[in-house]
Amino acid sequence: MSDSARSTRIPLVERVLEANDQLAETVRADLERRGIFAVDIIGAPGSGKTALLEATLRALTGRRHPAVLVGDLATRRDGDRLARWCDQVVQISTGQGCHLEAGQVRDALKEVDLSKVDLLFIENVGNLICPVGFDLGQAAKVGVFAVTDGDDKAAKHPYLVQAADVLLLNKIDLLPYVPFDRSVFEADVRLLNPTVPILDISATTGAGLYAWLGWLDRSPADRCSANPSA
Amino acid sequence: MSDSARSTRIPLVERVLEANDQLAETVRADLERRGIFAVDIIGAPGSGKTALLEATLRALTGRRHPAVLVGDLATRRDGDRLARWCDQVVQISTGQGCHLEAGQVRDALKEVDLSKVDLLFIENVGNLICPVGFDLGQAAKVGVFAVTDGDDKAAKHPYLVQAADVLLLNKIDLLPYVPFDRSVFEADVRLLNPTVPILDISATTGAGLYAWLGWLDRSPADRCSANPSA
Repeated sequence: MSDSARSTRIPLVERVLEANDQLAETVRADLERRGIFAVDIIGAPGSGKTALLEATLRALTGRRHPAVLVGDLATRRDGDRLARWCDQVVQISTGQGCHLEAGQVRDALKEVDLSKVDLLFIENVGNLICPVGFDLGQAAKVGVFAVTDGDDKAAKHPYLVQAADVLLLNKIDLLPYVPFDRSVFEADVRLLNPTVPILDISATTGAGLYAWLGWLDRSPADRCSANPSA
Repeated sequence: MSDSARSTRIPLVERVLEANDQLAETVRADLERRGIFAVDIIGAPGSGKTALLEATLRALTGRRHPAVLVGDLATRRDGDRLARWCDQVVQISTGQGCHLEAGQVRDALKEVDLSKVDLLFIENVGNLICPVGFDLGQAAKVGVFAVTDGDDKAAKHPYLVQAADVLLLNKIDLLPYVPFDRSVFEADVRLLNPTVPILDISATTGAGLYAWLGWLDRSPADRCSANPSA
């Protein structure tokens, strides 16, 4: 990148982020007024975000009233998978966009009957980096890691670990088959975020699912003690 | 994002990309003049790019003269892992940057004795989206997918599949333990890129490694028949 391109880029990115943050605050205020708890789920492609939501929606049937927004570059596949378990699912196609933005959330929410919702899942685009910087109006950020991706991924993605209100360590059913040292993973997390809960889970077998459902049920004050602003 | 922010964003991004492409052409011309074959390795976090490079470098010991540039947001871990097998490894820390750019490659190459190199591996930041749009001066792009990430990832990341000169399907040793239908993955790839080679591989067990080494050894004309410009 030339120096001139770089020097004009920073203020523009700041302006884009500022506009996004203002929209996110509007979304957040509306969701809070309606008593809807919204979580932004961030993880690498293949970390199991959609499988986690399938298991979660199935378990919540008859107990909670969830809606789901799901972002992807292309295809409606995740939305179709989730629509089997939830009647309010909106797929957001981002084209080449590497993350969701607050304006996309605001627009997608127009397609949801919010009077019937008390829990909003936003499945972000599969990407451990770019989604972290964009406030979507969520009450909490959920970071998803998978044991199949290696025990070094927390250290290599510090911004997500720092921003997360809870971390899910998924695919623990595959631990016998992969080189993953949980103590290394946890030590890296603790250097970045001393108090964030780390919940071991397998969306496939259901192991650890109740701890996650319990986290979703607790009050925001209990839930987000490590991040009072969330 | 406000409309005004959006309307000024596009030309700026184009200018950044144009500056990047010019730098990439300079890098490419220099590498070609020196007879160095350069590959840009793109894959999700945890798809096994570093493990693949470890196995590759070990196998090439005494046969080829490789150098490695490796990009990450944070930590030197990948660089340290690869330095065991190659004496010319440069770690590029991108901070919050979600991809490598040609200027970073140009600068990192100043730390390499190119007179002793015939093969350059550039391990991009773990991200299936953003790195695709940035030319680094490579001769070929390598896309890495892992069976543990699910058989839907090609369809969900069409730009990488279209741009790739070869796709590696990694972690095939874990196929017995995960729901991955290879015919679904391949059908999605073929819709996007009818001729790109798909090489099944396990960086851990070494399965399929020779096909990948063979691909690296073949002449660019043979190798890139599906993408004559690469």
